[in-house]
Amino acid sequence: MADVLKGTLVVGQSGGITAAINSSLIGVVHEAMQHAEIDGIYGAVHGVEGILAERFIDLRRESRRTLQRLVSTPSACLGACRYKLSDADYRRILDVFKAHNVRYFVYIGGNDSADTSHKIAKLAQEVGYDLRVMGVPKTIDNDLPITDHCPGYGSAARFIAISTMDAGLDTEGMRLVDPIKIVETMGRNAGWLAAASALGKRDEVEAPHLIYMPERGLDVDRFLADVEGVYRRLGYAVIVVTETIRDPKGVPVGQIEDDLFTDSFGHKRLTGAGQFLCNLISRKLKVKARWDKPGTLQRASSAIVSRVDLEEAYMVGRDAVRHATAGTSDRIVVLVRENGPKYRCTTGLAPLEAIANTEKRLPDDYIAPAGNFVTDAFVQYARPLIGGPLRRHARLKRYFVASLLGSM
Amino acid sequence: MADVLKGTLVVGQSGGITAAINSSLIGVVHEAMQHAEIDGIYGAVHGVEGILAERFIDLRRESRRTLQRLVSTPSACLGACRYKLSDADYRRILDVFKAHNVRYFVYIGGNDSADTSHKIAKLAQEVGYDLRVMGVPKTIDNDLPITDHCPGYGSAARFIAISTMDAGLDTEGMRLVDPIKIVETMGRNAGWLAAASALGKRDEVEAPHLIYMPERGLDVDRFLADVEGVYRRLGYAVIVVTETIRDPKGVPVGQIEDDLFTDSFGHKRLTGAGQFLCNLISRKLKVKARWDKPGTLQRASSAIVSRVDLEEAYMVGRDAVRHATAGTSDRIVVLVRENGPKYRCTTGLAPLEAIANTEKRLPDDYIAPAGNFVTDAFVQYARPLIGGPLRRHARLKRYFVASLLGSM
Repeated sequence: MADVLKGTLVVGQSGGITAAINSSLIGVVHEAMQHAEIDGIYGAVHGVEGILAERFIDLRRESRRTLQRLVSTPSACLGACRYKLSDADYRRILDVFKAHNVRYFVYIGGNDSADTSHKIAKLAQEVGYDLRVMGVPKTIDNDLPITDHCPGYGSAARFIAISTMDAGLDTEGMRLVDPIKIVETMGRNAGWLAAASALGKRDEVEAPHLIYMPERGLDVDRFLADVEGVYRRLGYAVIVVTETIRDPKGVPVGQIEDDLFTDSFGHKRLTGAGQFLCNLISRKLKVKARWDKPGTLQRASSAIVSRVDLEEAYMVGRDAVRHATAGTSDRIVVLVRENGPKYRCTTGLAPLEAIANTEKRLPDDYIAPAGNFVTDAFVQYARPLIGGPLRRHARLKRYFVASLLGSM
Repeated sequence: MADVLKGTLVVGQSGGITAAINSSLIGVVHEAMQHAEIDGIYGAVHGVEGILAERFIDLRRESRRTLQRLVSTPSACLGACRYKLSDADYRRILDVFKAHNVRYFVYIGGNDSADTSHKIAKLAQEVGYDLRVMGVPKTIDNDLPITDHCPGYGSAARFIAISTMDAGLDTEGMRLVDPIKIVETMGRNAGWLAAASALGKRDEVEAPHLIYMPERGLDVDRFLADVEGVYRRLGYAVIVVTETIRDPKGVPVGQIEDDLFTDSFGHKRLTGAGQFLCNLISRKLKVKARWDKPGTLQRASSAIVSRVDLEEAYMVGRDAVRHATAGTSDRIVVLVRENGPKYRCTTGLAPLEAIANTEKRLPDDYIAPAGNFVTDAFVQYARPLIGGPLRRHARLKRYFVASLLGSM
C-alpha cells in the first residue's frame, strides 16, 4: 500500500481529437471524485499549453449532467494541442504543478503525449517532487504499440464501416453515371482505418472492393488493373484509400513525379490521393469516378459512435486514477483482450516510454497477399471494437419480368 | 370519375440518389397494390434505360419485409440513370409500354426527369395511347420550383447540419493545431444544402461562422477578410462552401485564373473549392486549414435521415398513384406547406412541364445582406424539414482557477 499523497489532479487532452476522448476524461473525473486525497480536479486547457499558461478549469464545479453528457460528445472539451516542449517548458510545468500542489497528472493522448508525460515524470523524480504521472491512450489511427487497440479507433472504424456501406449503395445505384467511388480515410502511416471499411461487407458484391493501405502502398498500374477488374465484374467499384498513401518509390500518391501539377510560382501541390486517383481513372479507364473525403467527420461524428469504444475509453481513464492513487507513476493504461469466445477487454499497464514515439502498423496476417484488401483475421480482431452489429441494408431480390420485344 | 384503366404500372428512379427516394418508391408500390385495375407493378432498372432495354423487376414478388425496410434505405434500389432520350428512344418507350400493357408510369426524379416524363405523356397523347404519367419530385439540391421543398433534401440537410455541428466541435478542440475548417457541400447551382449547415447553430460562437452559396458567389479577397475576422474573434472558424461555387467573374473557385495549376500536358485541373480555399488560407493568412468533403455520404447516409423527409417522400409516391388511378396525367405531385403554427405539408399537383428544366435558387430574403450567411427566414423555412430536434452538444461551463504564478 502506497502512502496517501494529498494534492490536486490535472488532466489534459492532447493530439488529434476522437469521439471517445471526452469519455476518458470523464472516467478520470468521476474516479478522482471518489478519492479524498485528491482535493482538486483541474482540466488543463489545450493540454500542456494550458499547463504552461496556468489555464486550469475546476472540473468539480461542472454539473453532473454536463459531465455525463460529455461521455458521448466528440472532440476534446478541454481543447487539444500538438506542442513540443523545450527543457525550459518542462521546468515551468513542474513550477506550475508545485504552485498548485498538483500531485497527479493524467495525460490523454497518443505516442507524442506519452513521450511528454514520461519526461515530466522523469524530471519530477530527478528533482524529488512527488508526482504520479499516468498516460491514457487515444487515437483514431490505432497505431500505438502494446495496447490491444486504442480508444477512439472503434468509433472512427464504425464511421468508416457504415460510410463505406452507404458509399456502396450510392455507387451501385449510380453505376450508370459515376461507377467508381474512392473513399479517402485518415490513418497517418497505418492502414487501420482504411481496413475498417471492410467490417460491414458480407459478400463479394458488397463494398468495399479494394482497400489500399500505407503498409503495402499503391502502385498506380496495379491499382488501375485492380479497379478495371472489379468494374468489369460488377459494373461499379468502391475503393478505400488511406489519404497519406505512397507509391512504391515512396512518393505520396497525389504527387506522383511524372504527373506533377505546379502553380505559377513553381510550387508543387498535393491534390490528395482521392482526387488524383479519380482523375487517373477518368483519364486511363474512361469511366467517371467520384471521391468522398469524410476528413475530420470520421473522428468527430456524434451520430456514429461505438458504445464499446466509449465504455473502454471511460475505463482506461478511470483506471489511470485508480493506479495513480495506488502509487503507480510513469505508466500508461493499456487495453488487454481476454482469451475466450466472447470479446472482453480489461486494462493493464505499460511504461510510458514503451509507447512513446513508436508506431504499430497492420501486421502482415491482417493484409491480403495481393496487398489490396484485408484478411478474415483482421475482421475477427476489429469487429468487436465497433460496438453493436451494423444494420444490413435492404435490397430487392429482383425477380425479372420476361422480355417481350427482344433487344432494340 | 375517370374511366377505370386496367394495366401495368411502371415506376422508375432517376438522377442523383437520395436517402428518401426508396421511400417514394415504396409509397408507389404500396398504393398500387390497393388498386385492382393495376395488374402489374414493375420497377424499371436504371430508369428510362431499363425501359428501353425491357429490364423490369416484378415488385409484387418482393417480400413485405423487404419493401418495408427499403423505406429507410438510402440510394435507388432500382438503380438511377442520367440519360437524354432521342426521338427514337421516346417511340421505343411507347412500344415497350404497349407490349406490356403499361398504363401507368411514375417517374421519381428531378427537373430533367420531369421533362422526360412530360415528353412521354405528350407522345402517348399524340398517338392516342391511354397512359397516365405522373412525376414524383426528388433531389437533395432542393432546386425544383413550385413544390415547397423536395423529398431528399430534408435528410441531406440534416446530415449537413449535424456534420457542421461536429466539425465545429472538432475545430474548436483543435484550434491550436488546425484552426480553420472548410466543409464542402453538394448543391449544384443552388445554396440550399450549404445553407442547411446553419440549422444546428444556436449562438454566435457555434459553427458555422460563414456560408458561401452559388447565389452570391465567393470573392477571394472578401472571403479572406471574412475568415480572418472570425478567426481573430474566436480563435477558429468553420466555413461552409458549395462545391460548385464561382468567383464574381464566373470562374469556378478552385480554378481561379491567376492561380492555375497545370499538368505536364498543359491540362487545367480543378482542385475543388475546399482544397483551393485551404491552400489560400494557409498561404495568405498563415494559419493551417483543413477541409471535409462528405461528398456522396450526404445523400446516402443511413445513420442520419429525416423522419419527416422519409414520410413526405412516401406520401408523394403514394399520391402519385392515387391521382393517376383517378385519371390525372402529365402532372407532378408537389408538397404544399399549410399555414399555421405547426409545420404540416399536404400534396398538390403541378404540370410536369412547369418543373422541367427550371431551377429554384435561394430567394434573396434567405441570404444575409453580406452574402456570407443565411437569415432567420431560411432557418424558419428549413428547420421542420430535417425531422426531430438536433441533439445539442454538451460543453463545459469552464470555471477558471486563479493563476498563482503570473505569465511566463
